[in-house]
Amino acid sequence: MKHFLSIHDVQDLGNLISSGIIAKRNPFADQLLGKNKTIGLLFFNSSLRTRLSTQKAAQNLGLNVLMMNVGQDSWGLELEEGEPGNPIVMNGDKAEHVKEAAAVIGRYCDIIAIRSFAELQDRDKDYAEQVFQQFKKYAGVPIVNLESATRHPLQSLADCITMEEFRTKPRPKVVLTWLPHFKPLPQAVANSFCEWMNHMDVELVVTHPEGYNLAPEFVGNAQVIYDQKKALEGADFVYGKNWSSYEHYGQVLALNESWIMDEAKMALTDNGKFMHCLPVRRNMKVADEVLDGPRSLVIDQAANRVWSAQAVLKEILIGQQEE
Amino acid sequence: MKHFLSIHDVQDLGNLISSGIIAKRNPFADQLLGKNKTIGLLFFNSSLRTRLSTQKAAQNLGLNVLMMNVGQDSWGLELEEGEPGNPIVMNGDKAEHVKEAAAVIGRYCDIIAIRSFAELQDRDKDYAEQVFQQFKKYAGVPIVNLESATRHPLQSLADCITMEEFRTKPRPKVVLTWLPHFKPLPQAVANSFCEWMNHMDVELVVTHPEGYNLAPEFVGNAQVIYDQKKALEGADFVYGKNWSSYEHYGQVLALNESWIMDEAKMALTDNGKFMHCLPVRRNMKVADEVLDGPRSLVIDQAANRVWSAQAVLKEILIGQQEE
Amino acid sequence: MKHFLSIHDVQDLGNLISSGIIAKRNPFADQLLGKNKTIGLLFFNSSLRTRLSTQKAAQNLGLNVLMMNVGQDSWGLELEEGEPGNPIVMNGDKAEHVKEAAAVIGRYCDIIAIRSFAELQDRDKDYAEQVFQQFKKYAGVPIVNLESATRHPLQSLADCITMEEFRTKPRPKVVLTWLPHFKPLPQAVANSFCEWMNHMDVELVVTHPEGYNLAPEFVGNAQVIYDQKKALEGADFVYGKNWSSYEHYGQVLALNESWIMDEAKMALTDNGKFMHCLPVRRNMKVADEVLDGPRSLVIDQAANRVWSAQAVLKEILIGQQEE
Repeated sequence: MKHFLSIHDVQDLGNLISSGIIAKRNPFADQLLGKNKTIGLLFFNSSLRTRLSTQKAAQNLGLNVLMMNVGQDSWGLELEEGEPGNPIVMNGDKAEHVKEAAAVIGRYCDIIAIRSFAELQDRDKDYAEQVFQQFKKYAGVPIVNLESATRHPLQSLADCITMEEFRTKPRPKVVLTWLPHFKPLPQAVANSFCEWMNHMDVELVVTHPEGYNLAPEFVGNAQVIYDQKKALEGADFVYGKNWSSYEHYGQVLALNESWIMDEAKMALTDNGKFMHCLPVRRNMKVADEVLDGPRSLVIDQAANRVWSAQAVLKEILIGQQEE
Repeated sequence: MKHFLSIHDVQDLGNLISSGIIAKRNPFADQLLGKNKTIGLLFFNSSLRTRLSTQKAAQNLGLNVLMMNVGQDSWGLELEEGEPGNPIVMNGDKAEHVKEAAAVIGRYCDIIAIRSFAELQDRDKDYAEQVFQQFKKYAGVPIVNLESATRHPLQSLADCITMEEFRTKPRPKVVLTWLPHFKPLPQAVANSFCEWMNHMDVELVVTHPEGYNLAPEFVGNAQVIYDQKKALEGADFVYGKNWSSYEHYGQVLALNESWIMDEAKMALTDNGKFMHCLPVRRNMKVADEVLDGPRSLVIDQAANRVWSAQAVLKEILIGQQEE
Repeated sequence: MKHFLSIHDVQDLGNLISSGIIAKRNPFADQLLGKNKTIGLLFFNSSLRTRLSTQKAAQNLGLNVLMMNVGQDSWGLELEEGEPGNPIVMNGDKAEHVKEAAAVIGRYCDIIAIRSFAELQDRDKDYAEQVFQQFKKYAGVPIVNLESATRHPLQSLADCITMEEFRTKPRPKVVLTWLPHFKPLPQAVANSFCEWMNHMDVELVVTHPEGYNLAPEFVGNAQVIYDQKKALEGADFVYGKNWSSYEHYGQVLALNESWIMDEAKMALTDNGKFMHCLPVRRNMKVADEVLDGPRSLVIDQAANRVWSAQAVLKEILIGQQEE
């Protein structure tokens, strides 16, 4: 593996999931692999699980970690590139261009991992994933996605590992359900989940109020049902997540409080498990009874973030050895 | 030792003090004890000594360190728990519940150390120590107090180590004196100091203006004297600290500038040493002449914070080996 | 080497440059030198290159790193010292005096590295370098300058290493040229560059609009020319930098947009290389064509920051062994 920006960078998903499970059983087996190598973790946005689990995975592999809250620790980055005859004049609040920042950090680090959320103002801009494309172009080292505007693949891999651990059927029914939230959230986790499930041997159903359709390239072969209760029938895994509208980009169309996940709805499933990437707003998106009950896998998912990151970093480090 | 939230978690205070002094002489003797283990340091508030000394102690023990400024690096935490039929609906500015945060961090860390100050608005709430109780309940790993609303036990242990190093009598007279400050400060350091001194073989006197009585469960058997000069007579150690009123909770009742510690007052002691946990506002709380003079132990106290933390972390790590 | 505050702390500049180049070829040769030692990195201001490169250099030498954003992670520091009879009463927004902070951090760290920029309000105050002088006085351990109000010596050493790698003549012509910027910037990098070039075997020319003369003690033997094009003629290295006025302290006298560095001006040189310490505002200070062209050494300079820091830290660590 060279970069890890999306599932398209994964050669063999089954192998990657296995590698995560093996790392979980024996976390320190590859401690020499990262020796004298350095990973830079760049956060443009807040993080709890990603910050801690990626750092831990890196330490398990013997990597040195350089951590930076971009903008807070260092300088605001200009992302726009001009063209010959029409240069970008940097006379605003951004003191450094990503061309320099990426190239410089690429000289200090063997791997660069980045979190940069959608701004939810301009869909084309968000979906162009400028930060990641520019770091990929200018850093000269592997780039890892710690959640971009459109994807959160380390979360999706942790979800796959968790489902592998808890599934009871060869081809489970997986339902991604929209949940209510009063603030506009990105589509990244939902997009990524669909994208990865489309590569897994599952029956994927997506349910949400009308107006919240995800981008077709992510939904893929999933069945879309606007009736949440109907969608949940017989589910083995229920994956809850809020997202703002893709069509009416970045908007909260209506609160839709009735879409909260509770035990009555979970009762419609086939003894289904509940999953969520966290953080989750209790009793707004999901009722206490679900999160605190035996159906919830949310802590297991979060714990598996370490092994998801470790499997990806290991594959990148092995790729560097082979160069 | 399982948790370290207060002196009540200490089995043998003499042993713990000795362990700190031994670590000071030979800092790297236990470097294998923490190998492949991880401590998370969570700061809800600012820190200099605690941040650096705890990190250093952890490194001396071979621990990996994950550092997080909660709220700044990650999300604001909801601490309130609802009840069946009366759930807490998280529709405000807190994006994550401590139930999830604690459980997740507990999966990434073998020990979690937390700093969370009193808010000084609601005494019952502060004294319930919600953050610590919830992390203890939900994290599933040992919790270490890096200063809570009501206590600062790593400071108190460093104070005990310092007094052990500098005492010249079997049973010294120790005077905790209130100092003036224009801002309301928590009672944590003063509470903790009293609590620990009540377990030491000392004569403890507490002096402060009327209205600043500490909670009786912390004062214990100490003698309380409202006349500062009288209290200081014959003291071997003078421990200075400001705190806001416990009775009129969180209030600065009056500036009481005359309570400043200066050389004239130190002259009333029996060649007494001056102690303070730092940071200290010079010439507001304590005169330059005291802090810069030979009676001051404030830097020694701060330096001993490393050995205090190292003794506690060592005992917790040994406890984990025995499980 | 004891401290590293300026070139005056360097015994043999040729040796130090060689040491950096040797470290670049073999980064991990001295990994035992820093074992069980700790460096504290204190940032009063933003940083990207300095933060990451110094941390990496420290890790290459086996040092433990304690990182702190002063003011943000800990407390605001009072720098003023009173006199007998005229004490500084700390009743403002600074909760801790540098006397205590420096002494305490000096007990936790074997080396303290500090970044503290000019405030550009009071020239005498900035040029007195209070933070560094006080840490030097009170910390009791070596102090390293990560950019002070008046100097940036780790940058200058990286510049020397870069020029050593790219020079094609025994005695190159080096031109430091002022560049336009709408915000007032410190003189530190320009000062330091002059100071170091005055110790190198180069022909040094400084060019800037009238009113932007640097302090004479830094300019030294350099030739000062107010005509930028004339100055650039035959240059082997062009070092670009903006600075605010030293005479009219901290002021932007005029935008002088025509002072931007572009290819037409670079064509006046003797196939000269372009250097800049970064961050650089594109098309305000320097045109894209220069930064993206083959003449630019800016990324090499930044990359050499690791080896500059490693050479300095190594010499300090060796100095400590000899004590």
